[in-house]
Amino acid sequence: MRLEAISIGNELLTGDVLDRNATYLGQVAQRFGVCVSARQTIPDEEQAMVEAFQLAGSRADLVVVSGGLGPTSDDLTAQAAALFSGQPLRRDEVVLTRIKERFARSGRTFTENNARQADIPNNGIALNNPVGTAPGICLEYQGTVFLFFPGVHMEYVRFVDEEVAGRLRDHVGAPVRWKTLRTFGWTESAVAQALETMELGDEEWLQYRASFPEILVTIVVRGEDVDQAEERVAERCTEIRSILGPIVYGEGDQTLSAVIGQVLERLNYQIAVAESCTGGLIGHMITSTPGASAYFKEGVIAYSNQTKINRLDVSEETLAEYGAVSEETVREMVEGLCGRSGADVGIAVSGVAGPTGGTEQKPVGTVCWAIRVPGQPIKTRKIVFPGSRTRVTTLAAWSALESVRRACDSEAVGRG
Amino acid sequence: MRLEAISIGNELLTGDVLDRNATYLGQVAQRFGVCVSARQTIPDEEQAMVEAFQLAGSRADLVVVSGGLGPTSDDLTAQAAALFSGQPLRRDEVVLTRIKERFARSGRTFTENNARQADIPNNGIALNNPVGTAPGICLEYQGTVFLFFPGVHMEYVRFVDEEVAGRLRDHVGAPVRWKTLRTFGWTESAVAQALETMELGDEEWLQYRASFPEILVTIVVRGEDVDQAEERVAERCTEIRSILGPIVYGEGDQTLSAVIGQVLERLNYQIAVAESCTGGLIGHMITSTPGASAYFKEGVIAYSNQTKINRLDVSEETLAEYGAVSEETVREMVEGLCGRSGADVGIAVSGVAGPTGGTEQKPVGTVCWAIRVPGQPIKTRKIVFPGSRTRVTTLAAWSALESVRRACDSEAVGRG
Repeated sequence: MRLEAISIGNELLTGDVLDRNATYLGQVAQRFGVCVSARQTIPDEEQAMVEAFQLAGSRADLVVVSGGLGPTSDDLTAQAAALFSGQPLRRDEVVLTRIKERFARSGRTFTENNARQADIPNNGIALNNPVGTAPGICLEYQGTVFLFFPGVHMEYVRFVDEEVAGRLRDHVGAPVRWKTLRTFGWTESAVAQALETMELGDEEWLQYRASFPEILVTIVVRGEDVDQAEERVAERCTEIRSILGPIVYGEGDQTLSAVIGQVLERLNYQIAVAESCTGGLIGHMITSTPGASAYFKEGVIAYSNQTKINRLDVSEETLAEYGAVSEETVREMVEGLCGRSGADVGIAVSGVAGPTGGTEQKPVGTVCWAIRVPGQPIKTRKIVFPGSRTRVTTLAAWSALESVRRACDSEAVGRG
Repeated sequence: MRLEAISIGNELLTGDVLDRNATYLGQVAQRFGVCVSARQTIPDEEQAMVEAFQLAGSRADLVVVSGGLGPTSDDLTAQAAALFSGQPLRRDEVVLTRIKERFARSGRTFTENNARQADIPNNGIALNNPVGTAPGICLEYQGTVFLFFPGVHMEYVRFVDEEVAGRLRDHVGAPVRWKTLRTFGWTESAVAQALETMELGDEEWLQYRASFPEILVTIVVRGEDVDQAEERVAERCTEIRSILGPIVYGEGDQTLSAVIGQVLERLNYQIAVAESCTGGLIGHMITSTPGASAYFKEGVIAYSNQTKINRLDVSEETLAEYGAVSEETVREMVEGLCGRSGADVGIAVSGVAGPTGGTEQKPVGTVCWAIRVPGQPIKTRKIVFPGSRTRVTTLAAWSALESVRRACDSEAVGRG
């Protein structure tokens, strides 16, 4: 089976945007043991599209095209597909109705240029897009199947899962199964090096993906049958977990905050946060999980010393003696936070996010945090993180949350 | 001038590695007003390379090829280039000496497979690589210049700077200038439709990019000279701003929070936030801008009613009568926030982020916010946003911040 990809969009050629769609297609194909044979990246120009379709059609069985299906005048993919296959465009009334309904549901006004998204080549089939307005299009031409998907990443991913994965599964005889483990704390090369000790069979392979600040490890297995493939995936996951230890915090689509939410709910704990340098990021992460109101008590974004004193009962003496970025201060922050709010679990973070504000003793990137978990003494840490303001605050938030997860995990184990 | 790129490497097709070289070439070319016309991404296979060289050679003036010049058996680019141009490979003794010297300098042992990197097509010229072992290769064939560079990003960047930038500068007569305006509040199609009224010249074009929740509009102008191009960009920006009105909040790389920070600093105002459904996102956005400590006073993440009462002085009666998600409650939240913290400007948000918790009267997506700006009455709003939890909270945070920006802007205008 020869699979090719075509990515459409000026922004992919000017370097303004990274082609995440191409990455995703490559990874999904790899799971079925198929390698994308070639990818053409072309501008939003009709002639360039037609030529790319001709070239891919001349040598591939399946061509996946991304982008150019939107409502604006530079969205020319459907038009080019019609020209390429020698068919006129037709307005698909079912699609048009869906688009209008979508606008109505979200309270937006339907404007006439949006009707263009219902125009598909006469010999093509519209593929329903449950998460956006532009439909996908399936077109068979001279023995090659063309799948046209919207370039919006979320929509593209959904179409690949729905339309491409099934075709690859049918093509590949032996069933392929996989699972992703999510890690935080080591670099990609450190994770890969640790896992080099695994003796993988011919039909087993590991994929790594860095998605700052996480490293995702996927074990892919091609088995004789579904049961055997799933069993081997489970065995390999146990092995990976035993090698990587506590840096594995979750699997599949689980976010760190969802994992923490589950632990808090199991322990019947409420959590509160006191954030200085992270400025609300930790609260935002925790509350991104649906249902967080069951265990998230409150947060105080204590950027100024005044707020640390007024709202968290930090003593002026501690601030004067040790400074706002100190283990002593974050300890008092978490004490004051839990004392006032009545939360069981508390996180307090203070640091120098940069790019300015560093000193010789406390350079940019210095972050202190304290965590409180019932039945355990308050823990404090101090670390200097490298990188930009965004990297420092992200690493600070993740590190503090990971401390809480591990402390709660051991508490949960202790309770049996 | 037609410029094409060819990226070689299985890892680029499997999705294991992002093509940073392609991004870099696109960005450098853009500076000279040249758009990369097409990019082919192909595996480490000789036949695929020859075909890609033929296709690019048939239509481009300059072809930049990345990868496949290393010492291992899957590095086949030089060999494929020789085959493509009908010339044998020759071992370049100058290059070989350089490679050997490089090994000696770094204390590594020279192994025979490294000599392969000195093999270049007979009609090609070796380009010195001061930061790695593999040389670049320049090959002219049937009117097209081919530049072959190593795939290692640092080496590739250096070759592009040395060999490509100069060629582009020589070729480009008319200078190209552009500016991006950032908008929030309308859909991409609504923005595009509004700007359809502009009468653009042949050497002017608009680019749109949706980067949720923003829509970016870029005006690109090719002028007779730099001054004229820049003047026309400025004129077009004024025109776009007058058509789009207040939905344009900034330009270039400015973030919404940076724009708000500038306004607050100009007015010498301090801001505080009280967040329920946004859970810290607004604080996180404001504090993402370096130097935010100059104007960000504090935040309270008031997820529970208890916190709204204890930390924001919301009355129990208001909560009982109107509920947590009401214009009455957010009004009291912002009053309590500014009263306690002494902040000049305040934002309070409360809503039903979903996916659960909606009622008939307050469906999922219902968000209320209140803003306080000195010299103006407190403003409250209630809107039902469509979409997922993430979309609702993002739209809520942006809408509230935009209200503050516009209110402060009018305050700044009022002050003259």
